[in-house]
Amino acid sequence: MQPDLPDIPALQRLRTRSPLVHCMTNDVVQTFTANVLLALGASPAMVIDAGEAPEFAAIADALLINVGTLTETRAQAMRGAIEHAVAANKPWTLDPVAVGALSLRTRFCQQILSLQPAVIRGNASEILALAGVNSGGRGVDATDTADSALPGARTLARQSCAIVVVTGEVDYVTDGERTCSVPGGDPLMTRVVGTGCALSAVVAACTTLPGDRLENVATACGVMKRAGAEAASQSAGPGSFVAAFIDALWREGRA
Amino acid sequence: MQPDLPDIPALQRLRTRSPLVHCMTNDVVQTFTANVLLALGASPAMVIDAGEAPEFAAIADALLINVGTLTETRAQAMRGAIEHAVAANKPWTLDPVAVGALSLRTRFCQQILSLQPAVIRGNASEILALAGVNSGGRGVDATDTADSALPGARTLARQSCAIVVVTGEVDYVTDGERTCSVPGGDPLMTRVVGTGCALSAVVAACTTLPGDRLENVATACGVMKRAGAEAASQSAGPGSFVAAFIDALWREGRA
Amino acid sequence: MQPDLPDIPALQRLRTRSPLVHCMTNDVVQTFTANVLLALGASPAMVIDAGEAPEFAAIADALLINVGTLTETRAQAMRGAIEHAVAANKPWTLDPVAVGALSLRTRFCQQILSLQPAVIRGNASEILALAGVNSGGRGVDATDTADSALPGARTLARQSCAIVVVTGEVDYVTDGERTCSVPGGDPLMTRVVGTGCALSAVVAACTTLPGDRLENVATACGVMKRAGAEAASQSAGPGSFVAAFIDALWREGRA
Repeated sequence: MQPDLPDIPALQRLRTRSPLVHCMTNDVVQTFTANVLLALGASPAMVIDAGEAPEFAAIADALLINVGTLTETRAQAMRGAIEHAVAANKPWTLDPVAVGALSLRTRFCQQILSLQPAVIRGNASEILALAGVNSGGRGVDATDTADSALPGARTLARQSCAIVVVTGEVDYVTDGERTCSVPGGDPLMTRVVGTGCALSAVVAACTTLPGDRLENVATACGVMKRAGAEAASQSAGPGSFVAAFIDALWREGRA
Repeated sequence: MQPDLPDIPALQRLRTRSPLVHCMTNDVVQTFTANVLLALGASPAMVIDAGEAPEFAAIADALLINVGTLTETRAQAMRGAIEHAVAANKPWTLDPVAVGALSLRTRFCQQILSLQPAVIRGNASEILALAGVNSGGRGVDATDTADSALPGARTLARQSCAIVVVTGEVDYVTDGERTCSVPGGDPLMTRVVGTGCALSAVVAACTTLPGDRLENVATACGVMKRAGAEAASQSAGPGSFVAAFIDALWREGRA
Repeated sequence: MQPDLPDIPALQRLRTRSPLVHCMTNDVVQTFTANVLLALGASPAMVIDAGEAPEFAAIADALLINVGTLTETRAQAMRGAIEHAVAANKPWTLDPVAVGALSLRTRFCQQILSLQPAVIRGNASEILALAGVNSGGRGVDATDTADSALPGARTLARQSCAIVVVTGEVDYVTDGERTCSVPGGDPLMTRVVGTGCALSAVVAACTTLPGDRLENVATACGVMKRAGAEAASQSAGPGSFVAAFIDALWREGRA
């Protein structure tokens, strides 16, 4: 396993390219997700209508699908967006929030797995559920450790031909053969809503970078963990953490 | 009337149990609500699909219904969630935002009143409207005082067999017989969106605690008022208030 | 062209009147929009159901229509709200996010242009698209300068009988005859989601003020630019900017 160090040139490239990231994400994390992407120099846009989302997926540089507040209507719009992204050769990233615990999202995630996601990013329970291993997840929080999910993640990566990210105290990034581990971060990150969802958006942004995708995705994990640790050291609690985290991201990848 | 003091053991229990609170709330306050619950050690999850919401309501420890941005589709999902929560013996809390002023939510709130809410939390105009007393409410802001709504609150509590909370400069918590008053807070809390809605979520979390529910609900009111006063004393305005408020909640109930 | 200075009496009047602003806006900016309006003393309310929105539009003092996350369902609710606002002689403001780039919102904006908006606020690409001039917009970010859009803005103002605001490094406010320019602000404002959308909400609030509407709208632009510059000077990045910006607005228009 290769330890990952945040790759400054990758972050500089992100700022230079400013990829347009089409975020179809849950209701709870939209503002935070947009501000995280903006702080890193990417350009977020949320387009959700079943007619417009496919149009926009073909225009944007990358697509994020997060099923946190999935509905039947949104599932239909997401499916259209994925199909158009794939047809236009644009990478899409899946965040399978609480998959395995609830029926609509479980069916939906299983269906779209065949549509060639570039990356799948989840916690241990979500990755195990997608890999077909039973899990004790009871909602959005993992009840398994990232370590224990690594074999399942490798299997899922090989099955789906995607890079799989399992996040936890250590993040693991694997394509089924190679695996990077990304330590760091801070427990305070789990007491603020949306840090995982925002990571998935940053991962989506990094799928647009040239070079080795596994390394680019590990860079996304590394920058979030580094900014999280820095922000936690400057914060009196999860309230002040949010601003400090965005400010820390703002400083990443600058000359 | 019994003056209420924030009950530290109740807050410690909240952190220990970390109840899973299913929040079906309005579009405007989702992030803030989630972060308030996380700061107090509870575990928020927003699940909104008409198929998934009932499933999840039976899994979660408590349910919050907030009608601030109600639609017909959401009303249907909420009704299913309430029915499954009740069947699974999980308490649900109603925040009847702007009831009385608009037709869909007024009809909906009157219908679900019969489904045994554990707690109803509203401002004076909302509680008076639910109690069948005419009110001059013109939207989300109260045009009546909490004092003046207390008789109506007691009537509503007896009719619905729920604990009723009327919030204002002083919060009143009543089961129709006993009434607690909770003074404190700061006017700045009314210049930040979502403090009332987030209180309802904290109330929902506190319905999962053992012991006297009236006291537990008053504790929820007390902790929010105390954190609000502390945050206001440290803030230059409503912008810095938000972070200071979450940080103050973060410190509550710690040994 | 008349340079604009923030008009303190107008802001004081905003605090005194506390207009109720019905915001039908996109999913990403709801919290920020509400907190911006609250900081300036206005009263925001988001009501979105196709049944309730028309009811509420007639009750509220002003209506904001922002098509950032438009869906067919929301378009229907918005059209009903606009018709009831117009019938009740309440001004409505249009924020045509990404118009020209996507089909549903382009059709919708062209349709509602005939329903007498009081103000249209967009970036250069959006205003040019609405004016029927081809634009290179690829989403939410302008690819044209405000300067270059000014002739189109004047044409659009005359065609629609609305005041048109083109925002950029300098904001221009025109009724087709008179034009105000509003310099100031800070580039950091473009790295936080929702500053443009929130300006449209403040513009909507200012349409309720007595006096010259062109001047009142220019005041809205001026106060946002001034608060943005002040907040940027106090911030370590876009994270701390948000709180500083709301706090700066909180100080505006106080005696």
